[in-house]
Amino acid sequence: MKKNEIEIIEEIRKRFSFPKSLGIGIGDDSAFLKFKKPALLTTDLMIENVHFDLNYFSFYHLGFKIVSVNVSDIYAMGGKFLAFLLSLGIPQSISEEQLNDLFDGIREALKYYKGHLIGGDISKSEKVILSGFAIGECDKPLLRIGAEVGDNIFITAPIGLSSAGLSLLRGFTEGEKRQIKETRDLSKLRQLDEKFGFSVRRLIQRHLMPTARDPHKFKKIAKAMMDISDGLLIDLYRLCEENGVGAEIYLERIPILTAVLKAAEYTNSDPWRFILSGGEDYELLVISKDERAEDLGLIPIGRIIEKKGIYLNDPEKGIIPVKPEGWLHF
Amino acid sequence: MKKNEIEIIEEIRKRFSFPKSLGIGIGDDSAFLKFKKPALLTTDLMIENVHFDLNYFSFYHLGFKIVSVNVSDIYAMGGKFLAFLLSLGIPQSISEEQLNDLFDGIREALKYYKGHLIGGDISKSEKVILSGFAIGECDKPLLRIGAEVGDNIFITAPIGLSSAGLSLLRGFTEGEKRQIKETRDLSKLRQLDEKFGFSVRRLIQRHLMPTARDPHKFKKIAKAMMDISDGLLIDLYRLCEENGVGAEIYLERIPILTAVLKAAEYTNSDPWRFILSGGEDYELLVISKDERAEDLGLIPIGRIIEKKGIYLNDPEKGIIPVKPEGWLHF
Repeated sequence: MKKNEIEIIEEIRKRFSFPKSLGIGIGDDSAFLKFKKPALLTTDLMIENVHFDLNYFSFYHLGFKIVSVNVSDIYAMGGKFLAFLLSLGIPQSISEEQLNDLFDGIREALKYYKGHLIGGDISKSEKVILSGFAIGECDKPLLRIGAEVGDNIFITAPIGLSSAGLSLLRGFTEGEKRQIKETRDLSKLRQLDEKFGFSVRRLIQRHLMPTARDPHKFKKIAKAMMDISDGLLIDLYRLCEENGVGAEIYLERIPILTAVLKAAEYTNSDPWRFILSGGEDYELLVISKDERAEDLGLIPIGRIIEKKGIYLNDPEKGIIPVKPEGWLHF
Repeated sequence: MKKNEIEIIEEIRKRFSFPKSLGIGIGDDSAFLKFKKPALLTTDLMIENVHFDLNYFSFYHLGFKIVSVNVSDIYAMGGKFLAFLLSLGIPQSISEEQLNDLFDGIREALKYYKGHLIGGDISKSEKVILSGFAIGECDKPLLRIGAEVGDNIFITAPIGLSSAGLSLLRGFTEGEKRQIKETRDLSKLRQLDEKFGFSVRRLIQRHLMPTARDPHKFKKIAKAMMDISDGLLIDLYRLCEENGVGAEIYLERIPILTAVLKAAEYTNSDPWRFILSGGEDYELLVISKDERAEDLGLIPIGRIIEKKGIYLNDPEKGIIPVKPEGWLHF
């Protein structure tokens, strides 16, 4: 890249304006922000070859995703997203176009979530590193704590799409990967659907460019909530541990997308692995006892029980205790 | 490391408590914090082999430093530091002891700055990555903007120590490096001073375990402020650019520590390079016109001028324009 650090930061400042009424954004030692309510603060990290592979990830999609995964943690508390900071590590070999793509993706996501980039740090690095920091606000946060025996467990949409998408992406030809990287709006990849005979683009879109689930419609009926980032079983296990309870999942009640089944068949995988342990769908896990839950679009998949641990209720095999597997780094 | 991710996070939660009156700390999707004043938000990144070398950096010192470099950005706005989040990338080969050292260093720094760890993310990574987020508050921030022609330029203490220390560290024997890594309190390394004949420990302490400069004593007389993280010339240049002005530095007025001169001699370096372009001292650059500045401990080193650019006033050579050099990643 020909630009020096001062020029890069100047470029970023031009691209991301911040209304003066809200405070001070990029360009000083810290950002300055006036909250109307108490603040929500979270951070999420994405590292090349750990969380993503540049063979199929474009910088545009990366930029969008690092915002989404952070916003998801704000939404999981029932909060409103306000602002974003990014610590960025990039190899010196990165091109100006790639860097612009990254910031275009971030800008697109911030437009979608109605938030602002207000600061960051930039460093050279062997591998690409994206460390996001999201800021939100809410009067009263929805915690993981709050689930009681007898409560129902809901998810906000079918899951397993992201890991099914990842599984497909890994097996794609170089030509297919290049095509995906060159397409900002992945819904345009109709040819891929035609080629495979099922909605491939929906799966890879969920992996490459997920959107966080805004809970404003149903948060009033939630007793506890968290996002499903590492996998349904592991995240539900964490929520249950926090409450000293267990959970029973009705396998029959979990909706399965045909595309997920087809992707499992195509990649010779178990579709239940995608759904139960896949992670990265950024849907929400909602605990509620309210009768309006289903009318508000929530999907019931189980209930909170007294006995600790996670149990699958399988119509054929009965009730089976499961090891909560998912994405663990260590 | 034998611990899994859930166990590591459990360990961290135990170590870092957060008073309930302030909000909710580690353990949920986001932290929840009640501000009394508008917020200051900043992020700073440290990457292995870019910002530090594990041959002479202990995990304890790293933990302390990642907090300091972030707090410095809060102080540079005239703010009060409140809380910290950390995104952490670590190789799977890291030992439990090293991880404990890292969190001990973070805890020590948070005790020093009177703040709390309220969240974070952890991931495996080839190299060690520390991405910190600091949160502070202040009624009215002190910006880089505010300097006017005729204002005086101050620093808060002698500088150049950190890069002189780095220069020494790089040339140390394996035995010396090991000794430094094994010593948490670097002021105890009296033998090193005796061996070299000057205050080596003060220089390496500034590099390995710097402390941010709290501006509360003098911020009332400051018109503009920023921290000196990348080097005096480059940081002053940035401040001047922001204000559309230039700066003249009186070389004679800049205090030079004997230890910095000796380190320059020992490593065959130019001491002015350490002082003017070294960076990482985390002192503050203060612009003021107030007569009380020196009584409040500030060191005058120059003045703001109309002509853009940075000029050194050298008693022997006269006024020389300089290229603002310092730590730039690109």
